[in-house]
Amino acid sequence: MRVDSVLVTPIAFPDPPLLNAAGVHQPWALRAVVQVRTDTGLVGLGETYGDAAHLDLLDRVAPTLVGLDPFDLNELDRRVGAVARGVNTPDKHGLTGGSTGEKTRARVFASFEVACWDLQGRAVGRPVHALLGGKVRDAVPYSAYLFYKWAGHPGAEPDRWGAALDPDGIVEQARRMIDEYGFGSIKLKGGVFPPEEEVAAIRALHAAFPGLPLRLDPNAAWSPATAISVAKETEGLLQYLEDPTAGIDGMAEVAAAASMPLATNMCVVSVDDLEPGVRRRAVGVILADHHYWGGLRGSRDLIAVCAAFGLGVSMHSNSHLGISLAAMTHLAAATPNLTYACDTHTPWQGGVDVVSEPLRFVDGAAVVPDSPGLGVELDHDALDRLHANYLSCGITSRDDLGYMRTIDPGYDNRRPRW
Amino acid sequence: MRVDSVLVTPIAFPDPPLLNAAGVHQPWALRAVVQVRTDTGLVGLGETYGDAAHLDLLDRVAPTLVGLDPFDLNELDRRVGAVARGVNTPDKHGLTGGSTGEKTRARVFASFEVACWDLQGRAVGRPVHALLGGKVRDAVPYSAYLFYKWAGHPGAEPDRWGAALDPDGIVEQARRMIDEYGFGSIKLKGGVFPPEEEVAAIRALHAAFPGLPLRLDPNAAWSPATAISVAKETEGLLQYLEDPTAGIDGMAEVAAAASMPLATNMCVVSVDDLEPGVRRRAVGVILADHHYWGGLRGSRDLIAVCAAFGLGVSMHSNSHLGISLAAMTHLAAATPNLTYACDTHTPWQGGVDVVSEPLRFVDGAAVVPDSPGLGVELDHDALDRLHANYLSCGITSRDDLGYMRTIDPGYDNRRPRW
Ligand SMILES: [Mg+2]
Ligand SMILES: [Mg+2]
Repeated sequence: MRVDSVLVTPIAFPDPPLLNAAGVHQPWALRAVVQVRTDTGLVGLGETYGDAAHLDLLDRVAPTLVGLDPFDLNELDRRVGAVARGVNTPDKHGLTGGSTGEKTRARVFASFEVACWDLQGRAVGRPVHALLGGKVRDAVPYSAYLFYKWAGHPGAEPDRWGAALDPDGIVEQARRMIDEYGFGSIKLKGGVFPPEEEVAAIRALHAAFPGLPLRLDPNAAWSPATAISVAKETEGLLQYLEDPTAGIDGMAEVAAAASMPLATNMCVVSVDDLEPGVRRRAVGVILADHHYWGGLRGSRDLIAVCAAFGLGVSMHSNSHLGISLAAMTHLAAATPNLTYACDTHTPWQGGVDVVSEPLRFVDGAAVVPDSPGLGVELDHDALDRLHANYLSCGITSRDDLGYMRTIDPGYDNRRPRW
Repeated sequence: MRVDSVLVTPIAFPDPPLLNAAGVHQPWALRAVVQVRTDTGLVGLGETYGDAAHLDLLDRVAPTLVGLDPFDLNELDRRVGAVARGVNTPDKHGLTGGSTGEKTRARVFASFEVACWDLQGRAVGRPVHALLGGKVRDAVPYSAYLFYKWAGHPGAEPDRWGAALDPDGIVEQARRMIDEYGFGSIKLKGGVFPPEEEVAAIRALHAAFPGLPLRLDPNAAWSPATAISVAKETEGLLQYLEDPTAGIDGMAEVAAAASMPLATNMCVVSVDDLEPGVRRRAVGVILADHHYWGGLRGSRDLIAVCAAFGLGVSMHSNSHLGISLAAMTHLAAATPNLTYACDTHTPWQGGVDVVSEPLRFVDGAAVVPDSPGLGVELDHDALDRLHANYLSCGITSRDDLGYMRTIDPGYDNRRPRW
């Protein structure tokens, strides 16, 4: 079984005006769908970022994968490295921390690696979780991922979620999301309003959903001092506090003072960050994300490090569709120490997908597919529509700040903001 | 594909009187061969320790594996844990460091896990290295593993290697072993004679084989002060110094003073040791050994930790036959950062094996098999003979010290010895 062609299709789908420390989500979220076709007629699927610089790298790597054995991930890594070595393609929003050549390479590798796992599974007639050591759970719990948001994009109709700009709005959003999906834990994206308002929202969530684990993620918008004061105010309320401040030094300072673990998808984001993160005791939970941790294999290696050093493991999400959800779910299903509910943006995508039958959520958990490979099939008509969106939407890179400044030209982007 | 029976066969094969810090190898080395048979008619092979307490655990786990899917390593781990949890079966020689319940469980898991990988590969028609991510080398370099030794066991004829009790004897042994196998690096098992004699042997090897990487392993027979002084005397002569002293604290003290990296298969020997080992900077190279690191999967996890923390990876060996050699070779073949030549006792086994066609050595490297599974087949006649040895040899657990004291009743077993 050898690769005979690789197709990378950028897509765009509608995204609500979700607020965060970088600004606000644009009306269209970008992704790319990867199809790796073999000489045996199989097609493996991957889903990755749709930003222009990343797409450019994917397009340069894709033709070099012809002839690759989809089991040979080491050879895939070599071929990716031959093109991507020394290249660094930071994203504009910075919401997954800094970028390096190593992280860029891991992102490109992951884009194709997931498709290779899908092919491996299809070729041997087994689900990806079986190739990762066997599922330890039949359904993978995800958390309700709450965002402050406007009622709709400026100039557009309100979306179905409406506005959420205060504790009542956040509680209402949580209630709807939990009613629809059954989530058993809640994450609030913060870094949008002064910390006391976000702490008030956490208190309101705690009162409205007693017993549900809560998390707050201000995307490093706070100084260490602010973060320490929020940690004290939210003592006993949070399962973990996510990226309260920037950098390993700042996180270590906060971690030493906080009673809850600090989680991160911003300060320990690639292999090179693990040693300083561990030595400084900067983080207690790492949010794995196969899209930038080198695929399912790189994430598995990360998770092995977490197991060895007593770090918790959860899972990070950007706006994504059903191929990514399947990949995340297979990995989580086969990982005994992935004991926190994972993040997902699924509810925000309003049912739009590129797969014909997305994974089902039951009681807040995605049911793990047992069919060969990732267990999802491409909806080619949907892919065509979403690709047409990409061509017409006028966005080529995610830029939360730039979009925010088209609306609020004086938008304050200081770091730390509080 | 489900397991329908598991057969564990203890075996014994002749072993020369190899001297080490624990005493001397007995005339028979023990192992056990594991055969895992499936309802599809496949048989997967494993090789593990043959000590009585370990065999007892294997025999208790084996019947619980009926019905297991050989891909489901997480379920294998659960079933092993159900029997082995809380059990600790230390070996008598202590040459792989202390034992814990966790290490015991990892040993038992590994005994069956390798057979499961063999079955996976046979089932899908691919070599184990392909399932581990693809081979990055076609042959795996091993080192010449030199031992001080008597000419033969007391009362027996001299063996084909003859005596090696001084620098000349060691150089002569190295020359023969390198002539026969082509090894490109050399390890001397020390901890037998006063350190200055062993340093003299290293100097003699350096003079006789200029440019060949050298290693010295006294199995923690030295105090930190002695180890530091040996490290100074061997500056520029050693690729690494292996377990010069006992424990993470002692190793950290020596590591801080030594110019060469310290390697270990005695102080960081299970997942629980990784954090203290790394935090104390006690070791620079870890010798993976799938037999006690939780199989190929556990070793892969260990190697991921080493990659993240900048630790070198080599591979440890006890007396073993061809199934273990194949497992080690597949793992090493698929591990980009396994950059040191591995240890093997193969030359000491005098061609005795349980597999019909053992891996070939070319220029000191084992040629990586590309046939399905581990790529070795059981020689059932040999297995019967070696099992008959086990039944008649009168040894049920490896005991280098006990055997030494039958020869030299006053043998000094102090730690540190020097
Ligand atoms: Mg985050
Ligand atoms: Mg050793």
